[in-house]
Amino acid sequence: MLNKASSISRLVGELRKLPGIGERTAFRLAFHLLKTPQSLTDLAEALVDVRNRVRNCSVCFAITEEDPCPICSGRRDASLICVVENSQDMMAMERSNVYQGVYHVLGGAISPLSGVGPADIRVAELLDRVAKGNVTEVVIATNFTVEGEATALYLSKQLKARNVKVSRLAHGIPLGSDIEFVDSATVQWAFQSRNEIS
Amino acid sequence: MLNKASSISRLVGELRKLPGIGERTAFRLAFHLLKTPQSLTDLAEALVDVRNRVRNCSVCFAITEEDPCPICSGRRDASLICVVENSQDMMAMERSNVYQGVYHVLGGAISPLSGVGPADIRVAELLDRVAKGNVTEVVIATNFTVEGEATALYLSKQLKARNVKVSRLAHGIPLGSDIEFVDSATVQWAFQSRNEIS
Repeated sequence: MLNKASSISRLVGELRKLPGIGERTAFRLAFHLLKTPQSLTDLAEALVDVRNRVRNCSVCFAITEEDPCPICSGRRDASLICVVENSQDMMAMERSNVYQGVYHVLGGAISPLSGVGPADIRVAELLDRVAKGNVTEVVIATNFTVEGEATALYLSKQLKARNVKVSRLAHGIPLGSDIEFVDSATVQWAFQSRNEIS
Repeated sequence: MLNKASSISRLVGELRKLPGIGERTAFRLAFHLLKTPQSLTDLAEALVDVRNRVRNCSVCFAITEEDPCPICSGRRDASLICVVENSQDMMAMERSNVYQGVYHVLGGAISPLSGVGPADIRVAELLDRVAKGNVTEVVIATNFTVEGEATALYLSKQLKARNVKVSRLAHGIPLGSDIEFVDSATVQWAFQSRNEIS
């Protein structure tokens, strides 16, 4: 049987720390791994591998295995910087296949309620990149949440003072949406930003 | 950015193999681990620890770190064997705090449709334990599923031929149930097994 000090209890405890994993799920996952020793070994090795190989790009701060990251070192338009909160957001932008510039990963958003100020995210590093010149436009792609909007507002003020063009991803109704189910604030915004059809 | 050969992609792939974890969840877990390097290290170590320390008890085949397991080597009634499909079921029995005997973990249930016969689970080992004598009763606690019931039927025939008392956990309506929502097969069984109130 399991006692608190057993290795299985420890594994269950570690799995429980993961987001969205409760005690029952942690147990289920642990016993699944016990039944498939190869999966267990592979997962342990994958974790060690990630720990040893992944770091932040020294230019854009995205997670990467090579420094600078493939985007910063690739044939991308370095005069265009897209500011995102984290690497996952950057990956969502990349999946859209629309963006040809480079990125800047803030590592969070300004949130006075949680005590996160501009000094706690990579604002200074962004302003440094802009100060070095050759940047024509900064596209702010922080999330459309209170924190993301506050960050966008703060960044746009700072950047405009440095004479760089600042833009923000468009608000509006998502593709494929039934307007009936879109929240009213989004509909409101979409109406106010309506475009004339020529 | 991520390419197919990156260590993060590999970690996402390993996480996806876990039951109930799809691609989005695997990504979320991987990025959570990337953000908390200590969790990542702890999880990797816990996995290695489990791999190195956990094995099956040589008596009852429960997963354990010591052989024989604490239950088999403890002050339990060895004349009473409770047969369960797996170690999780054994843990559920232990949580109920009602059972003082020892266990036998089959490692599955008979399922002709999946090609699992009596030779594929630890039936022979159970019959060996009974043949050694000193066993007065075998409590069959396989699941109340088609496979579990088939296994219970097969085991009871084999065990009765060896002159050992065989019992089965009682069917019935779970505690705290509203009869309105209990499935009709359970209600039927509960009616047929009704007990006189004295």
